[in-house]
Amino acid sequence: MSLHGTYDNDNIFAKILRGEIPSVKVYEDDVALAFMDAFPQADGHTLVIPKGVTARNFLEMPQEKLGPYMERVQKVAQAVERALAPDGIILTQFNGEAAGQTVYHLHFHIIPRREGKSIGTHAAGTMADMGELETIATEIRAEL
Amino acid sequence: MSLHGTYDNDNIFAKILRGEIPSVKVYEDDVALAFMDAFPQADGHTLVIPKGVTARNFLEMPQEKLGPYMERVQKVAQAVERALAPDGIILTQFNGEAAGQTVYHLHFHIIPRREGKSIGTHAAGTMADMGELETIATEIRAEL
Repeated sequence: MSLHGTYDNDNIFAKILRGEIPSVKVYEDDVALAFMDAFPQADGHTLVIPKGVTARNFLEMPQEKLGPYMERVQKVAQAVERALAPDGIILTQFNGEAAGQTVYHLHFHIIPRREGKSIGTHAAGTMADMGELETIATEIRAEL
Repeated sequence: MSLHGTYDNDNIFAKILRGEIPSVKVYEDDVALAFMDAFPQADGHTLVIPKGVTARNFLEMPQEKLGPYMERVQKVAQAVERALAPDGIILTQFNGEAAGQTVYHLHFHIIPRREGKSIGTHAAGTMADMGELETIATEIRAEL
């Protein structure tokens, strides 16, 4: 199966970018939007997506836009670290269904790790409580 | 445990960069080096590391060097895709022991996925046959 195809303007992240679906945001500028994953694999699980592109995945991101986008991923990861002081942080990015991708708009996962606590399965958990996400997001926002 | 500490000039990737330890390289320029993971989680498992920095992890990478480095990660991932035509590609990057990090020089994993074939555990497998790695590396190099 090809890793490429037509960008779907109605994918859930496109709808979040247009404000048609609510999200708990932690950061936004002209380049990227960061928000809490609604199906977190761990507390503080945050997503960062690029704006103004139709890249389904990392492989399709225009090279000249990659650097500025990754700077936002780093900025948000650093804020997650300062806000939540996890024992570790995992970055993951999936290209294609066989890699576990479920939404076809480029996104990096920032997943805090705690020693002795395993992380949940990607996109298979229960939807998070919005109030709890908002509490964590407030802590992250304070570091941005 | 802090995610930060002193960069160890004798970490295994620093030694690979200095040519003190052999590696099966697929790409190298002034910004980054890409080589086959010696303990692959899947065929084609490739690592990309930045040159000229003492960043233990993604969080510590100087912002002005992040973009050019990530362009190399993308370039190599695209070559892996063209060379091996996997069903999916996972990118992972670990910050801190609790996140699974074993070498403290920033690196992104590029891991091809095949449908119906699970990937191995990080840094827990058997060392790969160098001849087999060289065969795969030759295919990837041909796309770079």
